[in-house]
Amino acid sequence: MNKSSLIIHTEKIEMIENKKVVLAYSGGLDTSVILKWLQDTYQYEVVTFTADIGQGEELESARNKALQFGIKPENIFIDDLREEFVRDFVFPMFRANTVYEGEYLLGTSIARPLIAKRQIEIARQTNAGAVSHGATGKGNDQVRFELGYYALNPNIRVIAPWREWDLLSREKLMTYADKHNIPVDMKHKQGGSPYSMDANLLHISYEGRHLENPSAEAEESMWRWTVSPEQAPDEVEYLDIEFERGDIVSLNGSRLTPAQILTRLNQLGGKHGIGRLDLVENRYVGMKSRGCYETPGGTIMLKAHRAIESITLDREVAHLKDDLMPRYASMIYNGYWWSPERISLQTLIDQTQQKVNGWVRVKLYKGNVIVVGRDSRTDSLFDPGIATFEDDKGAYDQKDAAGFIKLNALRMRIAAKKGQ
Amino acid sequence: MNKSSLIIHTEKIEMIENKKVVLAYSGGLDTSVILKWLQDTYQYEVVTFTADIGQGEELESARNKALQFGIKPENIFIDDLREEFVRDFVFPMFRANTVYEGEYLLGTSIARPLIAKRQIEIARQTNAGAVSHGATGKGNDQVRFELGYYALNPNIRVIAPWREWDLLSREKLMTYADKHNIPVDMKHKQGGSPYSMDANLLHISYEGRHLENPSAEAEESMWRWTVSPEQAPDEVEYLDIEFERGDIVSLNGSRLTPAQILTRLNQLGGKHGIGRLDLVENRYVGMKSRGCYETPGGTIMLKAHRAIESITLDREVAHLKDDLMPRYASMIYNGYWWSPERISLQTLIDQTQQKVNGWVRVKLYKGNVIVVGRDSRTDSLFDPGIATFEDDKGAYDQKDAAGFIKLNALRMRIAAKKGQ
Amino acid sequence: MNKSSLIIHTEKIEMIENKKVVLAYSGGLDTSVILKWLQDTYQYEVVTFTADIGQGEELESARNKALQFGIKPENIFIDDLREEFVRDFVFPMFRANTVYEGEYLLGTSIARPLIAKRQIEIARQTNAGAVSHGATGKGNDQVRFELGYYALNPNIRVIAPWREWDLLSREKLMTYADKHNIPVDMKHKQGGSPYSMDANLLHISYEGRHLENPSAEAEESMWRWTVSPEQAPDEVEYLDIEFERGDIVSLNGSRLTPAQILTRLNQLGGKHGIGRLDLVENRYVGMKSRGCYETPGGTIMLKAHRAIESITLDREVAHLKDDLMPRYASMIYNGYWWSPERISLQTLIDQTQQKVNGWVRVKLYKGNVIVVGRDSRTDSLFDPGIATFEDDKGAYDQKDAAGFIKLNALRMRIAAKKGQ
Amino acid sequence: MNKSSLIIHTEKIEMIENKKVVLAYSGGLDTSVILKWLQDTYQYEVVTFTADIGQGEELESARNKALQFGIKPENIFIDDLREEFVRDFVFPMFRANTVYEGEYLLGTSIARPLIAKRQIEIARQTNAGAVSHGATGKGNDQVRFELGYYALNPNIRVIAPWREWDLLSREKLMTYADKHNIPVDMKHKQGGSPYSMDANLLHISYEGRHLENPSAEAEESMWRWTVSPEQAPDEVEYLDIEFERGDIVSLNGSRLTPAQILTRLNQLGGKHGIGRLDLVENRYVGMKSRGCYETPGGTIMLKAHRAIESITLDREVAHLKDDLMPRYASMIYNGYWWSPERISLQTLIDQTQQKVNGWVRVKLYKGNVIVVGRDSRTDSLFDPGIATFEDDKGAYDQKDAAGFIKLNALRMRIAAKKGQ
Repeated sequence: MNKSSLIIHTEKIEMIENKKVVLAYSGGLDTSVILKWLQDTYQYEVVTFTADIGQGEELESARNKALQFGIKPENIFIDDLREEFVRDFVFPMFRANTVYEGEYLLGTSIARPLIAKRQIEIARQTNAGAVSHGATGKGNDQVRFELGYYALNPNIRVIAPWREWDLLSREKLMTYADKHNIPVDMKHKQGGSPYSMDANLLHISYEGRHLENPSAEAEESMWRWTVSPEQAPDEVEYLDIEFERGDIVSLNGSRLTPAQILTRLNQLGGKHGIGRLDLVENRYVGMKSRGCYETPGGTIMLKAHRAIESITLDREVAHLKDDLMPRYASMIYNGYWWSPERISLQTLIDQTQQKVNGWVRVKLYKGNVIVVGRDSRTDSLFDPGIATFEDDKGAYDQKDAAGFIKLNALRMRIAAKKGQ
Repeated sequence: MNKSSLIIHTEKIEMIENKKVVLAYSGGLDTSVILKWLQDTYQYEVVTFTADIGQGEELESARNKALQFGIKPENIFIDDLREEFVRDFVFPMFRANTVYEGEYLLGTSIARPLIAKRQIEIARQTNAGAVSHGATGKGNDQVRFELGYYALNPNIRVIAPWREWDLLSREKLMTYADKHNIPVDMKHKQGGSPYSMDANLLHISYEGRHLENPSAEAEESMWRWTVSPEQAPDEVEYLDIEFERGDIVSLNGSRLTPAQILTRLNQLGGKHGIGRLDLVENRYVGMKSRGCYETPGGTIMLKAHRAIESITLDREVAHLKDDLMPRYASMIYNGYWWSPERISLQTLIDQTQQKVNGWVRVKLYKGNVIVVGRDSRTDSLFDPGIATFEDDKGAYDQKDAAGFIKLNALRMRIAAKKGQ
Repeated sequence: MNKSSLIIHTEKIEMIENKKVVLAYSGGLDTSVILKWLQDTYQYEVVTFTADIGQGEELESARNKALQFGIKPENIFIDDLREEFVRDFVFPMFRANTVYEGEYLLGTSIARPLIAKRQIEIARQTNAGAVSHGATGKGNDQVRFELGYYALNPNIRVIAPWREWDLLSREKLMTYADKHNIPVDMKHKQGGSPYSMDANLLHISYEGRHLENPSAEAEESMWRWTVSPEQAPDEVEYLDIEFERGDIVSLNGSRLTPAQILTRLNQLGGKHGIGRLDLVENRYVGMKSRGCYETPGGTIMLKAHRAIESITLDREVAHLKDDLMPRYASMIYNGYWWSPERISLQTLIDQTQQKVNGWVRVKLYKGNVIVVGRDSRTDSLFDPGIATFEDDKGAYDQKDAAGFIKLNALRMRIAAKKGQ
Repeated sequence: MNKSSLIIHTEKIEMIENKKVVLAYSGGLDTSVILKWLQDTYQYEVVTFTADIGQGEELESARNKALQFGIKPENIFIDDLREEFVRDFVFPMFRANTVYEGEYLLGTSIARPLIAKRQIEIARQTNAGAVSHGATGKGNDQVRFELGYYALNPNIRVIAPWREWDLLSREKLMTYADKHNIPVDMKHKQGGSPYSMDANLLHISYEGRHLENPSAEAEESMWRWTVSPEQAPDEVEYLDIEFERGDIVSLNGSRLTPAQILTRLNQLGGKHGIGRLDLVENRYVGMKSRGCYETPGGTIMLKAHRAIESITLDREVAHLKDDLMPRYASMIYNGYWWSPERISLQTLIDQTQQKVNGWVRVKLYKGNVIVVGRDSRTDSLFDPGIATFEDDKGAYDQKDAAGFIKLNALRMRIAAKKGQ
């Protein structure tokens, strides 16, 4: 018996020992206020971490802002994680045709584990004992960040300012910013965006304000990445998509890196009005929430991946995947990317993709992704000689079906006999 | 111990005792040949059963043809089953958001159990000991028909001509027709449709011929119920859909019967290019098969049903349904509608729909069904006071989230401690 | 859109308005300290609720103790809930052959929802705004109590003293008792039981102290309800168990009430050394915990129920139940008895039991429950005429198996062809 | 598009080309008659394959019998497959705690895939185009053999004499044996065993005859591998079992091979009356069947494996395994060992076993396997410092539980609010 207990040290002790915190820092108003608040309230030395995961914003300004807050240059981390994001997070997730609650492509959920992982790495590197993030206490993102932190470093101290401070209204936040000389740009002064938004290479999301009434249609002006189907081109565009082991490796014959592929698919999808979603979802923390999403490239990927699987995957393997998918989606939605159960499921999912090789042709048109052809030179399980309605020259003996049906019916016949 | 065995009587004995068979008769060439073949080969007295399940064909001509084959007037059954079909089969299936292999809306699968049930009823009524159908030995439909027959009457004799005779090519069939004076209309003489088709109020399907190469795009001329998205109107059309206990009861404020609702949705969907599908599916009998489907109304229903559930269904109930849905879909696809396991699952599904009341607004446009609003006066679980990004006046205590995350992370922290 | 928010009123307001609390009161030391603490710390008027759920203790002394604390007679509730417990909680759970983590029969878990329900009823009756329980902050029971409270009354205030006070060691508790003249009986003065125990008509459990080392064998002296297999009688005892709709209705031909049945089965099981368990389980709150359990009657019930289902339940229905059972078990273990998902699953489970009628004969001997026979006069699906190894006179055509196998193998043959 | 069809060649052509068949030959009466029948009816050159999988019979006599039938020495294969059987089939299956229908340990099911695999290997080696087995057309074994054959060689011809010939009664079989000078030993002349039996290193099974009445107790004289609990020793025996990656590697400190371990566990279990089962199961071919089984070693393994997992496996991984287990069990029971879906699931199962290292102590006594201790020096996730009922020095903050419960209750509170 292992008698030494796995005591998870109380946080108070750690606070004293180590006064350095790695903050997931966007450079925007909210995380700037947090930065200042960590310095003032906790007297923490702050390490800022800013990641490019394809959100489409210029990141070097975050460096300047950090410097203005007195962050030491060696404590400023700005990383381009786009390839890692698509290769190690987005692609593995799409191998399972993952959709949460029948609709949501998990664009926000899948980015959090990467941020969390990188924060813990930087904490190790800079010898910081704490991490912090700007997610509120009502949402799923706090859970996704923190489950990641704890799974990767059980002793880490987590500071979630939104759950601690009293700056819960926008007004109070602005007052705090003013008082502490935190620069507030014009758009915030004018009331800010009417939405809470999140973006990365997979999607952009909108929540809050006008969307809090789920019976009201979202305003057309909200959408940023896609044109509306109405405004999309009147011409169809064909696209050839090639898969290797379940991942896309080339578009129209051009071999690209994972991030290049998703970038290109986003352009194509955005142009053709593809990938808008307006839904009410169930958050892990217990309430229903209305969200709008644009996932142009992901929407194309999902359709194409199902199509390549349709000719290369065995029926029962495909059904096993379908049965497990909602559970896998919940794991990711709820923040369990770094959990052992997600890793176990991933092992199965990845194993099934060995023969998911081939190509799919889709037609893009005004919001539609239409699969028009699919084939695999090496791994197609489609056998026209068996499936044909014409004479199959003995490939399939129709008489076999009689026995197949008879035995499958047997238990129901016996039961029906009883009922007579 | 019940010692009397449930002997399922050998079929040979029944053949001698009872020489009457109920044939699912469409009036077309194939089932006409079968009718004649049953008379000639088996010396059977044939009872014809022709059902209107919304396939959109005139059925009275089936009566005339049957009379020409010498069928007694009292042995000719022509039933309008459209309301029963939608109310007792289509609607219950849509309560589960049922989709087979991520795409297929089960339009053919869901009609077969009704045909089977009615054939068995007519067999009882006419004292017939056998039933017969025109499905081939390669497809799923033979299974769906026959599992239904056996579950509802364990002693019934089933005659599946396509598995017995040698008329396996179209040429042989035509020769047989000629020889037996079976009228062959012009289109069959010219080679017939290039597709094997099936239609009912839920969908029309295409298989075979040109479609047997899954890498080749289907021809535009194939599609019959929908215009292409390209040819659909340039104007968006809004539609208000009202649900009671999970079923649609009114469209744009007009209360309609189930069949009227599906008919109207088909018109709207067809007009707007909605509901085309081109896929490769896995048949229960073991091979992959390429099919194209038009399910205009069903595509709208599915989207709208998910939307009304999104605000009225508890999260865990919704997830339970999602986890079970692929299994339920396979039951229907594979022909187990009349099985005890489908009935047990249906009990659960129906129980979950008690509070699925409210309305959904969708926008129809060139192939798109876009949900833009949803609400329930009586059963909405969406609580804006909880979900709001603004001050919620204490409705939700953000600090609760810290404990929630801590305990959910505990097992991973303990494991991570071990790994250090 | 329902604009009125579902504000869950802040608790502080309720505290002021209503100073009455319903305490789940056993009469023992811990809940007596809680009673006093609620009076002193919160200035609450306490309503005591003491339930007989078969824990085998005299309950009237709880009344006297309550009176000594100044509880008004009309605020003392002592209920015999044994029949309700078995009929509405234990029996429904056993219809699913419910076992948590392959071993645990959920004896503690299944009692909590009943206590919670009754507390909420009494709160309504006495116009109390709060409820309280004696479960610690580390265990599952706090969750089970409180999820029940909240599901049945969303506005209820919950007081969990163990999570609030500082009496976290036994010593402090004793000091508090001394100081407040709370009678402490001899056994507590001597250090109390070496185990944390819980008992009801379904089981008795042991946790803590000596059991906290999972590598060490539990002491024989710990077990209270069963003799050890070694000390059980040397003679086998047969028992005939009759089921109606999945529930036991008679033993050896005597028709008994649910509580009488479980009482009798406990006597028989206890006598024959049946139903001891020693395991490590995963708590909902995140840690592993070692527990020992005696469930003598439940162990017999589980075996017998599986046996009666084995001849009366359809294969696929039985498999559906087996697939869902672990999920159902987790719902109960985790405290979600009153959740909509448990109720939905129960609907399915209960529907499957309609034909689970018949009898089972078991042999009890030194820890073993051995099923030796089972039959159902009305609902047996066992057909000796089909299953026989002898000549079955055509009941089953062995040739059918060839087609059955051929079609089931088809997808694997096609794949193997590809691999060649 | 791959236009070359995967034609599965008609069997008639193969028959002409290749007249060699590999027979799974036990040397007993039934397979001897089959051997002769294959020679006479099909004019086949027979290759005999006799495997030692621990059935406990002397196998060299099979060689002599084969020679008497004129089998060429190079066509006689006698293999000791015991180590492969336990290592590659039994152990992997036990990693999943596999039980069919809550009771059956799959002793027969798990041996068939190995026999099938070896037959196909020998067919390849001897250039035989066909394989044959002695399983009847009513059972599961024909399916298990043949799905294996087809999955491993899609072109193989399968001969199942019991589905083809007319020797369906024992009398006819004996007459055939007499007529063809097939030696019939005394026991068969006297009517043979009253049971149909199957044995291998994992179990021995009994079906048929007296067992066909499921209400009647099996005779004590039937059981062969275990004493009855009544006749087992009066002394308890302790056993220490060590696991590495989920497999047993040593008993009481002695490191043994897989087959040695199972052999030793069978001795111990048999001595202590452990592992008898009497049940009614649902066959894949559709009927219910009564079977009795002795699985002494397997019963100990299952208990011990669950126990080692209880301290080394993460909760959610364990639950994922439990949820998938019935499906995995059905795959094996139904004969899909060599299917892609079983292989995919196995990948997941094996991945979960990496840290299933440690030891378990069990007590064997008169039919009971009682786990009394378990530990893992390297991989225990049991943390006494967290789980303790005593002061945990801050390892766990009980206040966290309040937030945990509050958020888990939120959806139910919102729903209850609606219902008020």
